[in-house]
Amino acid sequence: MAEQGKYSGLKYFLVSSPSEYVVHVEINRPAKLNAFLEAMWIELREIFSRLSHDEDVRAVVFSGVGDRAFTAGLDVQAASQDGALNGDGGKDGARIATRVRRHILEFQDCISQIEKCEKPVICVMHGISIGLAIDMSCCADIRICSKDAKFAVKEVDIGMAADIGTLSRLPKIVSSFSWVKDVCLSARGFGADEALAVGFVSQALESKAKAVETAIGMASLISTKSPVGVQGTKEILNHARDNTVADSLKYTGVWNQGMLQSEDFKAALMSGIKKTKPRFEKL
Amino acid sequence: MAEQGKYSGLKYFLVSSPSEYVVHVEINRPAKLNAFLEAMWIELREIFSRLSHDEDVRAVVFSGVGDRAFTAGLDVQAASQDGALNGDGGKDGARIATRVRRHILEFQDCISQIEKCEKPVICVMHGISIGLAIDMSCCADIRICSKDAKFAVKEVDIGMAADIGTLSRLPKIVSSFSWVKDVCLSARGFGADEALAVGFVSQALESKAKAVETAIGMASLISTKSPVGVQGTKEILNHARDNTVADSLKYTGVWNQGMLQSEDFKAALMSGIKKTKPRFEKL
Amino acid sequence: MAEQGKYSGLKYFLVSSPSEYVVHVEINRPAKLNAFLEAMWIELREIFSRLSHDEDVRAVVFSGVGDRAFTAGLDVQAASQDGALNGDGGKDGARIATRVRRHILEFQDCISQIEKCEKPVICVMHGISIGLAIDMSCCADIRICSKDAKFAVKEVDIGMAADIGTLSRLPKIVSSFSWVKDVCLSARGFGADEALAVGFVSQALESKAKAVETAIGMASLISTKSPVGVQGTKEILNHARDNTVADSLKYTGVWNQGMLQSEDFKAALMSGIKKTKPRFEKL
Amino acid sequence: MAEQGKYSGLKYFLVSSPSEYVVHVEINRPAKLNAFLEAMWIELREIFSRLSHDEDVRAVVFSGVGDRAFTAGLDVQAASQDGALNGDGGKDGARIATRVRRHILEFQDCISQIEKCEKPVICVMHGISIGLAIDMSCCADIRICSKDAKFAVKEVDIGMAADIGTLSRLPKIVSSFSWVKDVCLSARGFGADEALAVGFVSQALESKAKAVETAIGMASLISTKSPVGVQGTKEILNHARDNTVADSLKYTGVWNQGMLQSEDFKAALMSGIKKTKPRFEKL
Amino acid sequence: MAEQGKYSGLKYFLVSSPSEYVVHVEINRPAKLNAFLEAMWIELREIFSRLSHDEDVRAVVFSGVGDRAFTAGLDVQAASQDGALNGDGGKDGARIATRVRRHILEFQDCISQIEKCEKPVICVMHGISIGLAIDMSCCADIRICSKDAKFAVKEVDIGMAADIGTLSRLPKIVSSFSWVKDVCLSARGFGADEALAVGFVSQALESKAKAVETAIGMASLISTKSPVGVQGTKEILNHARDNTVADSLKYTGVWNQGMLQSEDFKAALMSGIKKTKPRFEKL
Amino acid sequence: MAEQGKYSGLKYFLVSSPSEYVVHVEINRPAKLNAFLEAMWIELREIFSRLSHDEDVRAVVFSGVGDRAFTAGLDVQAASQDGALNGDGGKDGARIATRVRRHILEFQDCISQIEKCEKPVICVMHGISIGLAIDMSCCADIRICSKDAKFAVKEVDIGMAADIGTLSRLPKIVSSFSWVKDVCLSARGFGADEALAVGFVSQALESKAKAVETAIGMASLISTKSPVGVQGTKEILNHARDNTVADSLKYTGVWNQGMLQSEDFKAALMSGIKKTKPRFEKL
Repeated sequence: MAEQGKYSGLKYFLVSSPSEYVVHVEINRPAKLNAFLEAMWIELREIFSRLSHDEDVRAVVFSGVGDRAFTAGLDVQAASQDGALNGDGGKDGARIATRVRRHILEFQDCISQIEKCEKPVICVMHGISIGLAIDMSCCADIRICSKDAKFAVKEVDIGMAADIGTLSRLPKIVSSFSWVKDVCLSARGFGADEALAVGFVSQALESKAKAVETAIGMASLISTKSPVGVQGTKEILNHARDNTVADSLKYTGVWNQGMLQSEDFKAALMSGIKKTKPRFEKL
Repeated sequence: MAEQGKYSGLKYFLVSSPSEYVVHVEINRPAKLNAFLEAMWIELREIFSRLSHDEDVRAVVFSGVGDRAFTAGLDVQAASQDGALNGDGGKDGARIATRVRRHILEFQDCISQIEKCEKPVICVMHGISIGLAIDMSCCADIRICSKDAKFAVKEVDIGMAADIGTLSRLPKIVSSFSWVKDVCLSARGFGADEALAVGFVSQALESKAKAVETAIGMASLISTKSPVGVQGTKEILNHARDNTVADSLKYTGVWNQGMLQSEDFKAALMSGIKKTKPRFEKL
Repeated sequence: MAEQGKYSGLKYFLVSSPSEYVVHVEINRPAKLNAFLEAMWIELREIFSRLSHDEDVRAVVFSGVGDRAFTAGLDVQAASQDGALNGDGGKDGARIATRVRRHILEFQDCISQIEKCEKPVICVMHGISIGLAIDMSCCADIRICSKDAKFAVKEVDIGMAADIGTLSRLPKIVSSFSWVKDVCLSARGFGADEALAVGFVSQALESKAKAVETAIGMASLISTKSPVGVQGTKEILNHARDNTVADSLKYTGVWNQGMLQSEDFKAALMSGIKKTKPRFEKL
Repeated sequence: MAEQGKYSGLKYFLVSSPSEYVVHVEINRPAKLNAFLEAMWIELREIFSRLSHDEDVRAVVFSGVGDRAFTAGLDVQAASQDGALNGDGGKDGARIATRVRRHILEFQDCISQIEKCEKPVICVMHGISIGLAIDMSCCADIRICSKDAKFAVKEVDIGMAADIGTLSRLPKIVSSFSWVKDVCLSARGFGADEALAVGFVSQALESKAKAVETAIGMASLISTKSPVGVQGTKEILNHARDNTVADSLKYTGVWNQGMLQSEDFKAALMSGIKKTKPRFEKL
Repeated sequence: MAEQGKYSGLKYFLVSSPSEYVVHVEINRPAKLNAFLEAMWIELREIFSRLSHDEDVRAVVFSGVGDRAFTAGLDVQAASQDGALNGDGGKDGARIATRVRRHILEFQDCISQIEKCEKPVICVMHGISIGLAIDMSCCADIRICSKDAKFAVKEVDIGMAADIGTLSRLPKIVSSFSWVKDVCLSARGFGADEALAVGFVSQALESKAKAVETAIGMASLISTKSPVGVQGTKEILNHARDNTVADSLKYTGVWNQGMLQSEDFKAALMSGIKKTKPRFEKL
Repeated sequence: MAEQGKYSGLKYFLVSSPSEYVVHVEINRPAKLNAFLEAMWIELREIFSRLSHDEDVRAVVFSGVGDRAFTAGLDVQAASQDGALNGDGGKDGARIATRVRRHILEFQDCISQIEKCEKPVICVMHGISIGLAIDMSCCADIRICSKDAKFAVKEVDIGMAADIGTLSRLPKIVSSFSWVKDVCLSARGFGADEALAVGFVSQALESKAKAVETAIGMASLISTKSPVGVQGTKEILNHARDNTVADSLKYTGVWNQGMLQSEDFKAALMSGIKKTKPRFEKL
């Protein structure tokens, strides 16, 4: 089991271990619909950085505390007082631009840590799941939701193009560019059925409880597999998304020249033949 | 409202403004099933170039006049008399190749103007929608159709690979590469239901009238949003389609370093909090 | 009809010609569920290399002999004795890595020949279709299956990331990245309905017989088209998958500067007008 | 000889034809050191667009009228009154940004036309050659200069990063990135010898007259070659700069599948064998 | 002047400010030829991260303390005891591979911070400058050296391909790929003259003292320029190195849409006209 | 020593082993100035394919037999009778195009094998070195020449753009794009001094004999190094040429995660410390 101490002292997230090698990360600000303050995305980065190299972790479930929201996104009220986005520190256009850009890149970097985490992340969305909810879930590997989920790419409604990753990733993870443009340009809401139909989520469950249970089940299954195989699969799939088939094939060959020198390969082959359950070393 | 004068004197298109900030462009050669002559795609480029920078325009609906066809594509009879595609001007293979290439690139450039238009374009297809109909609609941001639409990627049936954009864009806007190959290699027809199922269109309405009405509704909704947010969203989504996630994130940060210095951001935030309807400056 | 002699002397495949210009390639090791030995993928490369330039061939159907399996993938028992993947030839990590990499790249190269074949390939999957079955079918242009097909991206279960092409191509041929990650990370099975829903296959037929018949019908239809148009369409669609829209448009223009100098173009135009059936020269 | 009428009515440029198939374009505002007004780069685009497809043209020499300057770059005084770069039309940051971006992209597009011109362009620089002089010369195929040339990437001295192409192209056309950074970050001047040593120019001649004569000689030599060979060489070299070797090889193959169907190929081969001077058809 | 306190408490580096807005960073382990321990590259990252956003800094000089060496590279003796590179923590090939990869990526990330630093970095090399010396200097913007510098891409001599950046950057910063291959494959030494001839350094001075003085002079000059112009120039040049000309032009336009909204632009224009010395706000 | 038998039975090349682990490949058709027939480039591919995986080979020298020419390029007389390039097999433009393209891609593939060879290749050029001589030498890692070498990118003189690799690789291996355009557009000759000045070759020796001796010396030196280090360096440098710095760094990390698990690393470290000569296992 993942050592609890590694993830203690957190202010905005709960981290638990529902089963061996599985970690559950929960956004924990339910009184504010799990809306994000700057301190939260910095904490988020820290958590997923640690998970990435924690050898007691093989799969991660990511969800939100409370019944009403996975997250309502950015805490707009707090953000509106953020120095980086308003005038303090000077009025020169280029200098404001520099502050704004640094702020965005830092914010992106925090959220992208979910994607960079070497272990698979399954995101469970329920209730209000808007704005930053979409940015973050697009970084996860697998997205599932409960039937009550209410999604929206909300940024256009605050006068801006979404800049923390939704527009960069969404066209590459769902089916229809027409649909992507529709929801991003109009900021209209959509529900679980629509999310499932276009492939944004791969399952829509009856309730949040059922969805979390399902995600933990998926994570537990993945955790029984060779971590060498699982982590290589995540890495290569993300690389494939951003590269040509020829480059991806080459990268895969170079990746596996190191990784096939593993006992996991032999152990898994053998247990397949002998119908036994393999045990894999930590990674 | 968009100033009518800017779009007067057109020969093959109707341009009207069904609501504030919304422009409706209609292909107007119904007697010939809206089939395209060379003069038409040159006029099309001119129209969408002007719309792109027209500050009275925030969203565009694109459809065809008449009941029978969005467009039957290239006017093949006329094209067969086109100098660039037959022998006049010499018989040397390389010189014919040069004329043909210049012609294709010019033709592509005209049609791509729909995509380059900085304002969102919603394409409404009905009836016969083949060949160039697919090329053009793939440049639009959102595609919807009426139930009677009859689609086909028809070019293989005239002995050629489609070269005005269908093959370049279709694999990136719908779900299934197997389906894309199927319809492009066989030139077989498909209807509204199939187009909806694979995500080629995001809605299939009862009738052309209903589809146009729906598109105008969508355009009107988009037109109430901040044009800074909307136009940035279109730009970044198109950039994301063609770039890695890392490059897209960086580009987004640089884009927004300029764009977040807008009153729209503050106005939209405020009106969200105060539940008022924001008004945005022209763009 | 494709000259039989060209494809005689094969050990693991049947090659026949069910109709003019159509070739049917069948994996022929049914007693072992069509599982692959190294000699088989080398033979496969040889077959598809020849088909690529065989002017008597315009479309290819690819399936497996027997009722139980398209293919159960790699013959794991045989592979486990493969020198390249175990210790013989030295124990130095870098030298093992080199042998392993060369082996993977050679293996990839054989399987990629299905994609490189200039003629369209329609893959028919039935029964057990796992591991290498997915790698190979992802190289085909069109995938269809029978209702009894049982698919799995099985490699994680043998302790490795799939390295013969599934992870490189699957994200680009189906709709939902969440679904791709789900099946690749868990190695779970999925059936024909799920494969159809996500767009992995474009049809799911009642039986293997029906699926093969359908594929031959599609191939026969494609074979009546201009081979200039068909082969150009395949080439440009595959190029589009791996390039930006701008680069794809340019490449298309350069491709067609040579290809529109064909009689096929004129013949097809004419027969369209005269409602006759065109005959095209071999290619 | 290039038909003079095609290039008459120009306000800021002289266009002449010093020898068959060779055109000489001269910036003609010597009283102002050939400094550029907006109308000038628009006229420049028009000229190079025409040259690109003018079959009487096979090579272009580009230089400046007068003894003192190739060009002193942007006419800063005029630019400082340019609406696009100052406040008229509103003060909103995003809207100013949009006007500025459109202006830059339009300006870049004009200058890039030198590169897009299908015929080789030889740029002759003399005297003051700063700012826009560098942007433009980087678009040319071959750069030569006279010994008195005084170069500078001057933009940092007006508080901005050069945005009309110098920073995009210079790293790809000279040898040393350290040198590029040095001259671009410091805006320091450099002379003909330094330009030659780093490969920015390929020749440094005694005087402007000698340099123009040399350029015309080079252009005349190139004009005796097959225009199919010459124009293909320019196209493929520019493509190579921006693509991987693998993609470049493929593009070259597709380019030449059309272009080797030329009589030029046979004529040149024959005249090589027979030691005669070949004549090539126009292109 | 840069506030000294920000850079106090360093163990392996000296940080001073020889003139306004200029910072001098010196590797400070002369007794060991400035060879690098892991703690040093972590400290290096920290320093350049701070410099990047420190508004009192406009240019950085980077050199080594002592007469004998800029740096002799990795402290091999120390590295040979590094857990990540030898067997502790298990013998499984895939798990060793994972530890090694994480170590390399972390090490690369530290060194790349020199490149990511938003302010220009001028690297001064003298005496022994091998291995990591080359990796680090390739991240700098400008490289100069003293005549006594002894360079070598030394990694092949310790049985490995250089992996901290030399092989990734060197082909893009010097002239001749033949020369790059020569020095990287043979690990042979080369001196200041050769480094200058191929463009690896842009100046070779008489002595280390003279080289440092020259670098500080260059840095001081750059520091008098608009930081908006300078930092934009660095950013766009690095982006250009890694992107096509078309993408670079577009990125430049988007960058400057924000940056031209600066008073620096007007101030620099004015002072150019009035021959006064402009003062620029901090950045 | 490389086993001679592996390279016996060759018709157009001599293969010898002047020292341990070094192979010398010589073009052997001196009576025809080593001009190439189709059979020769097919034999060339075969030779370099074998060298690539031959563990007795660590470095290759490539030169031409005889005093007069490295090679005069394509045997034009023979080529003019080549079916693929003239009309036999039909007159349809698209079908000729297809034959021509297949021919070019096959030809490119043969020549590119020099680059794909995993062992470093040092090319020695002397006397006439034109056309294909440039294509081939651009695939080598290191180019040196004798003073009497006469180079030319000759293809424009036979009415075509060079299509076997010169135009794809030359812009990436020498310093000045202006110079590249000059020699490629004019087909003019250039000598050893010019080749050295622009970095096309890295040494110009007194005589062919001296150049061959020098190349063998370089190859011998490289052969004393760890083949793991050497081959990795070649692979990563070629990858770097075609990829962004970020992608190259990542690829390097993944490459070395396998390769640092080598005894070579430890052996080389130790022998460095102990001043002994290391012996490396074959690869």
